[in-house]
Amino acid sequence: MIAFITDWGEDSYYVSSVKSVIKNINKNAEIIDITHNMGKYDIYSYSHILLRASKEFQENTIFLVVIDPTVGSSRKAILVETNQPKYYFIAPDNGILTQVKRKYGINKIIELNNKNYFWKESNTFHGRDIFGAFAAYLSKNINFKYFGNELLKINELNIKNPFYNKNNIIGHFLYKDSFGNLETDVENNNTFNFDKHSSYVISFEGKEYPLNYKEYYSECGDDKLLMHFDSSNYLEISINKGSAASYLNIKNFNTKFEIKKIK
Amino acid sequence: MIAFITDWGEDSYYVSSVKSVIKNINKNAEIIDITHNMGKYDIYSYSHILLRASKEFQENTIFLVVIDPTVGSSRKAILVETNQPKYYFIAPDNGILTQVKRKYGINKIIELNNKNYFWKESNTFHGRDIFGAFAAYLSKNINFKYFGNELLKINELNIKNPFYNKNNIIGHFLYKDSFGNLETDVENNNTFNFDKHSSYVISFEGKEYPLNYKEYYSECGDDKLLMHFDSSNYLEISINKGSAASYLNIKNFNTKFEIKKIK
Amino acid sequence: MIAFITDWGEDSYYVSSVKSVIKNINKNAEIIDITHNMGKYDIYSYSHILLRASKEFQENTIFLVVIDPTVGSSRKAILVETNQPKYYFIAPDNGILTQVKRKYGINKIIELNNKNYFWKESNTFHGRDIFGAFAAYLSKNINFKYFGNELLKINELNIKNPFYNKNNIIGHFLYKDSFGNLETDVENNNTFNFDKHSSYVISFEGKEYPLNYKEYYSECGDDKLLMHFDSSNYLEISINKGSAASYLNIKNFNTKFEIKKIK
Repeated sequence: MIAFITDWGEDSYYVSSVKSVIKNINKNAEIIDITHNMGKYDIYSYSHILLRASKEFQENTIFLVVIDPTVGSSRKAILVETNQPKYYFIAPDNGILTQVKRKYGINKIIELNNKNYFWKESNTFHGRDIFGAFAAYLSKNINFKYFGNELLKINELNIKNPFYNKNNIIGHFLYKDSFGNLETDVENNNTFNFDKHSSYVISFEGKEYPLNYKEYYSECGDDKLLMHFDSSNYLEISINKGSAASYLNIKNFNTKFEIKKIK
Repeated sequence: MIAFITDWGEDSYYVSSVKSVIKNINKNAEIIDITHNMGKYDIYSYSHILLRASKEFQENTIFLVVIDPTVGSSRKAILVETNQPKYYFIAPDNGILTQVKRKYGINKIIELNNKNYFWKESNTFHGRDIFGAFAAYLSKNINFKYFGNELLKINELNIKNPFYNKNNIIGHFLYKDSFGNLETDVENNNTFNFDKHSSYVISFEGKEYPLNYKEYYSECGDDKLLMHFDSSNYLEISINKGSAASYLNIKNFNTKFEIKKIK
Repeated sequence: MIAFITDWGEDSYYVSSVKSVIKNINKNAEIIDITHNMGKYDIYSYSHILLRASKEFQENTIFLVVIDPTVGSSRKAILVETNQPKYYFIAPDNGILTQVKRKYGINKIIELNNKNYFWKESNTFHGRDIFGAFAAYLSKNINFKYFGNELLKINELNIKNPFYNKNNIIGHFLYKDSFGNLETDVENNNTFNFDKHSSYVISFEGKEYPLNYKEYYSECGDDKLLMHFDSSNYLEISINKGSAASYLNIKNFNTKFEIKKIK
C-alpha cells in the first residue's frame, strides 16, 4: 500500500503522472491518496499533518510524501524506515519527517541516489522521477539497500513542544480543516483538568477570546467558540456550525496561543 | 463495491483515514468516491443528491454516507437495505435517507450498535470508527444481522413534493453544480407540455425572470436563461456558458420557485 | 488502463456516475483520474494539457476525454488510435485531439455510433452514456471495429505554433497550475541560447516585464519573475514562492507573448 500526500492541488495532472509511473513500475501497486488539497502550509505544519494522517494506516505502508518547497536545492531524497509501527517514508530530507521521527522512532535511513531506479533525470519533477519511482520499486519488494547509501540522521525542524499543566496550555495553531476548525499541536495526555462548567480564555498576538470546553460540537450553542479533543486526540478550536479560523482571523499558522482557566 | 460520499472536502486527510480502515478490515474492498466536495448543503439537499448519485450503481452496492452534522447527538447509526433495486445504505439516522426510501422502498433497518465491529470508540469521528468499519465488514459479506438490532422505521425529513401540471411547476432549488447550473426536485413524469417556442417565467422570493425551454444548452444563445430536463431526468435551470446560480443570486437552497407559461 | 479527464470539477457526482458505468461494463477496469479540476479553459488550452498529461502513460492506455462544451451540437463522438506511441483517445470530435494528432500521428479514427454499446440514450450526459461506455468496452478488449464506421479525418483547431530562435520566443500562455505558474506552448528544442547571466523581458498586451532564466526556482530570489523549462520540457513563467498569474494579471489564456534578450 502506497499512501500519497502532496501539496500540489488536484487542479493539475501532476498527481496522475506520478501514479502512472508507479503503475508502470508495479502494475499491482495500490495507492490511497491522503490529500493533495490541504494548501500551501509550511513544512512545520505538514510535519504534524503527516504524523496524524499516518496513524490509521497498517504496518508496512509506504508513505510517498512530496511536500518539497526545497526542490532544486541540495536537499537529499531519503527513505526512512520507522520503528514502531514499522512504516516507510519516502520524502525530501527537509524536516518534513521531524514529527514522525519523534513519535515512531527511526530504524534506518537511505539516501535515494541510485540512478538505476530513477524514472527520468529531471530538474523539477522529483515527485515523479525520484520519489514516485522509489515508492513503486519498494512496493514491488525490491530491497531498499539497493536504493543508495545509508545515512545516520535526518534533518529536523526546530519544533517547540507544547507546554501544559492542569489548567494552562501553551500551543500552536497548525492548520485549519475545511470547516474552519483550528488544529493544534496539543495532544491529550490525560493531565488536563478541563471541565464543561468552567470558563476559559484563549489569547494570541495580543488578542483574547472566551471559550468553553466541550466533548461534542452539538453541546455548544451555534456561533460559540469551543475547544475539544478531536478524534485524533488533539486539541481543536472550533465554532459549532461556523469557522473558528475566520472568527479568530487566523492567517498565519504556527502562531503561539495560550489557554487559561478563569473561573 | 463501496460508494463513498461525505461533505468533508478533500482539503483534509479524513477521507483517507476511512479508506485505510476499510482496507485494514477488507483488503479487497473496492471504493468509488461519489463526491466529498459538493459543499455544506443541508440534509434536505443531500437527501436528493444521494438519490440521484445512487442511480448509476449496480445492485448490492454499499453506500457509505457520512453527511452528519448531527454527530455527537443521540442520532443512531443505521444500515438500510432497500427493495428495488437492492442497495445497502450505511448512514446516520438523521433524515438523509428520506428520498432513497421514497424511491426504492425499505426492506430492513439495522441499528449499528454492536461494538465488536467498531474500529475505535471515538466521540467525533464516526465516519471512520463506525460507518466506515461496518461498510468494510458488509463488503466482506459478514451478515448484517450481527451488526445490531432491527429497527422498524427511519427518521424522515418533512420534504414537500413538487407540484406540476401541464403548464405550471412549483419546485425547489436543491443545489448548484460546478458550472452554476441549478438543480431542482422536479422530475420529468412526461405530463409536462413544455415546448421550445413558448415563453415562460420563473419566480421566487418576489423576483421574476423570463426563461425558455430547450433540449440542449447549445440551442440557446449565450447568457440566456433556460430550463431543460438533465441527464438524470430532473428539471435544471441553466445559462448557456454562464452560471444561473450567480445570475439569479441564489444563496439559500431549498427555496421554492414557480414556473408559468405566459405565451 | 483508462486515464480519465474532464472539466467537470469534483464538486459533483458526475465523475462517479461514469466510473460506476465503466465498472458495470468491465468490473476489472482500472481507472486513473488525470484531473477533473483544472477549470473551464477552452478546447485550445485543453488540447495542450491533454498532450502533456498523456506523456507518462504506457502504450495502449485508453484516454477518456470529456472536454465537451459542444455537447448537444452535431459534433461526433470518436475513437482515435495513435501511431507512436499507440494510445486510444475517446473524445468528442471538437478539436480537443489536435495536439495529440500533431505529436503522435493517427492510425485509425472510428465514429462511436453503434448504439448497441451506448449505456443510455440521453441528450446531455454523453460522458456517461457514450464516451464512458465505449472506454469500458475497449478496456474489455472488444474490437473497436464494431464501435462504428471509420472516419478519414478529425476536426482540428487552428493552432499557431510558437516561433523561436536563439534569443527570441513568441508563444502563448495556456493555463496556470495551482501555484500560479504560467504554462506555455513553447517546447524546448535545444536551439535556445538562454543563460542565467543575461537579462530578458516578456511583453504581451502592451505590457513589459523583466525576467530571468533559471534552472531551479530556488536559484531565484523570492518574488522575482523567472522562466525555465519545466519537467515536461515546456517553458514556464514563474515567481519563486509566488503566483506569476496574479503578478502578471493573466485572466485570458491563449494570449500571445514575446520574450527578448536585452543584455
